[in-house]
Amino acid sequence: MREFILRALKAKTSPDFTLDDLPGSGGRMDLVCRCISNSLFVAQDMRRDTIFHAVLEGPLLPPKIVSFFGETLRNVAPDERNVASHIQRALEEGRDLKLGEEKEISPGIKVFKKSFERLIKEKSENSQLIYLNKKGKDMNDFEFKKNVVIVLGDHIGLPRESEKLLKRLKSEKLSLGPKTYLASHCIVIVHNILDRRGI
Amino acid sequence: MREFILRALKAKTSPDFTLDDLPGSGGRMDLVCRCISNSLFVAQDMRRDTIFHAVLEGPLLPPKIVSFFGETLRNVAPDERNVASHIQRALEEGRDLKLGEEKEISPGIKVFKKSFERLIKEKSENSQLIYLNKKGKDMNDFEFKKNVVIVLGDHIGLPRESEKLLKRLKSEKLSLGPKTYLASHCIVIVHNILDRRGI
Repeated sequence: MREFILRALKAKTSPDFTLDDLPGSGGRMDLVCRCISNSLFVAQDMRRDTIFHAVLEGPLLPPKIVSFFGETLRNVAPDERNVASHIQRALEEGRDLKLGEEKEISPGIKVFKKSFERLIKEKSENSQLIYLNKKGKDMNDFEFKKNVVIVLGDHIGLPRESEKLLKRLKSEKLSLGPKTYLASHCIVIVHNILDRRGI
Repeated sequence: MREFILRALKAKTSPDFTLDDLPGSGGRMDLVCRCISNSLFVAQDMRRDTIFHAVLEGPLLPPKIVSFFGETLRNVAPDERNVASHIQRALEEGRDLKLGEEKEISPGIKVFKKSFERLIKEKSENSQLIYLNKKGKDMNDFEFKKNVVIVLGDHIGLPRESEKLLKRLKSEKLSLGPKTYLASHCIVIVHNILDRRGI
């Protein structure tokens, strides 16, 4: 199983954004959608072994987590506008969720009222948490032992306190090479590394 | 220098498509835009050493090539809708081009009235043409000698006669691993391989 967690600090948590302006009105929802698309689609298929969690922390109702489960996901297309329409529906239907509650929106899509910290603490119990940094060890050489959960920041990057929490949870800091890549590109490179190694 | 050539068999060659429906009205223009975005953007910067050629072959005025030059490109954002708006403007301003003619649209964007075959024959004179196939040699092990030009197909794939032409032009068939990836993902993986090898 491969899981990705994106912390999107400015992405809207209420459905009042327009699909015609995802970067502005959506709080860089375009970036969130590209990450979701890159994590789940492969030629002529969907990655059934992959789960993507978009942790949204912008206005008006933070935090919200919209999760996409490749195993059961249906009727989603890879373009940004289509992915965003599913997020918008999840935020609409999940508007009144209370902390700790969740709701299934459609096959393979759920919305949660849960914080980033809560989510990664839960994941750390049974999975190997990984975050990406140019100064980390090369992911090509890392020995994966458990379920892999990759934690990503948005265009602003992961806040320092998130990195501290990740360290406390014994996360591994890994590198994808000499450049700093966009989160959506990191996902493609990680998938390729895991595909090549048959993980 | 890195160059990418995408042959998009159904993508519109006239500007009469809506930015609200890139997959349908644009003839999978969403896919073209994701490829352009993935080829040119890197965290906090643009890849100044990269050129992307979108060969459009759908209705109404095929063929058209819209090229993005990272070295001089300005005012383009990575979201699909923004990239598509630049393509639409290029198709509008290049509507009356005659075969062999070209026009600069804005810094780093040009439109050409030229065929896929003509473009790759020109590139083969001074560059190493590469196309991707699961059965090829691993790109990680390939010795790059010249300017690299990667030729990609869209969701339909490269037509058989294009593969034959590529073989005649002594192109290399290379693999990115055990899976068949979407064109937009291939671009990210190719960049990562070249970044790691300092090419």
